Amino acid sequence: MLKLYGYWRSSAAYRVRIALNYKGLEAEQVSVHLVKEGGEQHKADYAKLNPQELVPAFIDTDSGDTSGEFVLSQSLAIIEYLDEKYPEMALLPQNMQQRAIVRSMAMSIACEMHPLNNLKVLQYLAKELNVDDDAKSSWYHHWIHEGFGALEKQLEAHAGQFCFGDSVTLADLCLVPQVYNANRFKVDLQSYSNIVRITHNCNQLGAFVDAMPEHQDDAT
Amino acid sequence: MLKLYGYWRSSAAYRVRIALNYKGLEAEQVSVHLVKEGGEQHKADYAKLNPQELVPAFIDTDSGDTSGEFVLSQSLAIIEYLDEKYPEMALLPQNMQQRAIVRSMAMSIACEMHPLNNLKVLQYLAKELNVDDDAKSSWYHHWIHEGFGALEKQLEAHAGQFCFGDSVTLADLCLVPQVYNANRFKVDLQSYSNIVRITHNCNQLGAFVDAMPEHQDDAT
Repeated sequence: MLKLYGYWRSSAAYRVRIALNYKGLEAEQVSVHLVKEGGEQHKADYAKLNPQELVPAFIDTDSGDTSGEFVLSQSLAIIEYLDEKYPEMALLPQNMQQRAIVRSMAMSIACEMHPLNNLKVLQYLAKELNVDDDAKSSWYHHWIHEGFGALEKQLEAHAGQFCFGDSVTLADLCLVPQVYNANRFKVDLQSYSNIVRITHNCNQLGAFVDAMPEHQDDAT
Repeated sequence: MLKLYGYWRSSAAYRVRIALNYKGLEAEQVSVHLVKEGGEQHKADYAKLNPQELVPAFIDTDSGDTSGEFVLSQSLAIIEYLDEKYPEMALLPQNMQQRAIVRSMAMSIACEMHPLNNLKVLQYLAKELNVDDDAKSSWYHHWIHEGFGALEKQLEAHAGQFCFGDSVTLADLCLVPQVYNANRFKVDLQSYSNIVRITHNCNQLGAFVDAMPEHQDDAT
């Protein structure tokens, strides 16, 4: 049995939801409210499960792990695990170089963009550095434009219907939640024609639609 | 032939240098000075190679890629590629669950800590948000303590001589440069006993010693 601890608006949980849907895997979804009462991710029970006090956390009770439940954090590590355990509907190309490019594109979002714009960072800017809403918005927009500007150039070389050719990959699973998030913060993305086009293509697929934040049980 | 564009103080390039050394691979090293003249990573020639305008960038001229030179960015994607192409001295465990845990630990550094503390972010804080040196230092220390606090708990469950058991893995390649960086910013790490111990163990190995920033040709 698979279990995913997430939150409807978490981009990182959103990535894993798409992976599960794409592979047709059932997982119990547990909501961890990132804002209520200072954030449920900081409560003792959850912190024991994931000391990083972040979502997502993932459990596989049927991993063959001798210690019983196999607990994993970090969305890209979870998705690589799912892709190895359930190789149907592969999220990484078979070819070594192609696989590396897909990982590189995924990480250009996961290691350069998302970390600068997630909740804990925006909270730190406001609370500890007294950054006002306008400057916080500029911060957000700056990293989105820097990241998507570079990604758009990579896509010119590699994209087809999706980020890498005509199959859904790990890169698309990172792109779509980042675009969703950027739209929420009113970033104008229209100059990134590949990004807009690929996101549109992804969002025609049930796996992506069902994973959308507003379609989650904990959406408010 | 392998070629690595890096910079002596870049933690991400440092990770790749350790991987190359550990696997006994020769690579031509090209220095991209991240500070001089506004940063050589922003020059047109380099930006063409890596539109993210970050180090490292990596070239494999003997990849079998039909387009000739195979160019790759993002340190973890580069290291996974090296580990697949040169499987001797593996940097990821064979066991699927163990491999996932190693990736998770590596990403807890690469996706949560390093992105908040790298040069471009510290420059933005100072230049765009007028954050003074004390507050910038607090920012830096905050994310190091948050990240290492969580990692230390994961290490209690998984560490041996190294981050995962008694073999060097991708997690160690991320840990050691992050510790180096934290020491440079005078973060007191002594309460993280596993992190301190593992870093010490790693730094007994030639692969790690030769990759140290101060041992690079472009160190000043």
